[in-house]
Amino acid sequence: MTQCVITAKIGTMPRWDPKAEERLRNAALELFLEHGYENVTVTQITERAGLTRRTFSRYFTDKRDVLFAGSEQLPPALADAVVRAGDTLAPFEALLTALVEIAGVFADRVPHAARRRAVIKSSPELQERERTKFAAVTDALADALQQRGAAASQALLLAHVGAAIFQTAFEWWTDQPDHADFPTRIREAATELAANVGGSTPSAE
Amino acid sequence: MTQCVITAKIGTMPRWDPKAEERLRNAALELFLEHGYENVTVTQITERAGLTRRTFSRYFTDKRDVLFAGSEQLPPALADAVVRAGDTLAPFEALLTALVEIAGVFADRVPHAARRRAVIKSSPELQERERTKFAAVTDALADALQQRGAAASQALLLAHVGAAIFQTAFEWWTDQPDHADFPTRIREAATELAANVGGSTPSAE
Repeated sequence: MTQCVITAKIGTMPRWDPKAEERLRNAALELFLEHGYENVTVTQITERAGLTRRTFSRYFTDKRDVLFAGSEQLPPALADAVVRAGDTLAPFEALLTALVEIAGVFADRVPHAARRRAVIKSSPELQERERTKFAAVTDALADALQQRGAAASQALLLAHVGAAIFQTAFEWWTDQPDHADFPTRIREAATELAANVGGSTPSAE
Repeated sequence: MTQCVITAKIGTMPRWDPKAEERLRNAALELFLEHGYENVTVTQITERAGLTRRTFSRYFTDKRDVLFAGSEQLPPALADAVVRAGDTLAPFEALLTALVEIAGVFADRVPHAARRRAVIKSSPELQERERTKFAAVTDALADALQQRGAAASQALLLAHVGAAIFQTAFEWWTDQPDHADFPTRIREAATELAANVGGSTPSAE
């Protein structure tokens, strides 16, 4: 149930024709990879999808929006999940629970995620946009952890690390989508981090 | 000795007149904070510093460069320090040693760091530039860890987390510059991370 609510919240808001949106997204990703993001026009996207420009405008503001539509909902969704995580959980556990929950929302995006990432990698402008998104994720996580009672300095550290885990697990997942799903990758990243960090304390030089 | 070499490498490359550079930097930071970064011209900066535009051009390409000069040397300096760290160190220990070493280079920047950060916070354009810098740090750290033999996936995770520690410790330090120096803040962040991460493994939902 929670899952459904969140799925509805992120990126797949009820629209008139999900198939049209899907066709436009597929066409856009194909074209971006074929010709380079900068060289593709909205007209080309709509032609490839066999739809009108007017239909395009119903779903996306511009071609960049095809890649980022709904992403403004990621920070609040993550923050909300952190706040909702069980009262007894320590801050890092609450953070992980939230990351795993929201990662589950991306399950139906497997076919897009790897291609989307390849497009973003190809363009400094899109990379900037993607970094801005993750900066907003960090801010939202820090606020949410503070709302749970974490000190500001602890919240900031864990928020940065949480964003790092989310981003890394996302890259692992999209690099090998058949290996494990995104939530599993989040858990793996946290386990690997604990194994690497746990034993070592920063040594004096 | 190593310290000196690194200091020379980052941002304080031998120039003709370190005092002129310092005066320009101080004038720029003052003006940015007084009038807002967008509203300040290079002419105002040189007037406030009592120097010519020609002198300005000797040190900086434009007003943004006053804030970022030398920062392109941070990623390679960190990567170099990771590669140089003792052979016997585990990846995360090598990473920390490198972060602590390079943080030491910033010691003489205390008076600037907090004001610089306040200016950057005030401008989306500058925030973007700062994020681009940290993305380059992450990439450089990941490469260096792989050079030490870490698997690509581990290197990516630790690089993201290393950048998160560096950034958080930097914010802690500039928030309270009299509390502890930057290298100490790096060690504190790593200790706090270990304390938070160590005990908890990601729980299944």
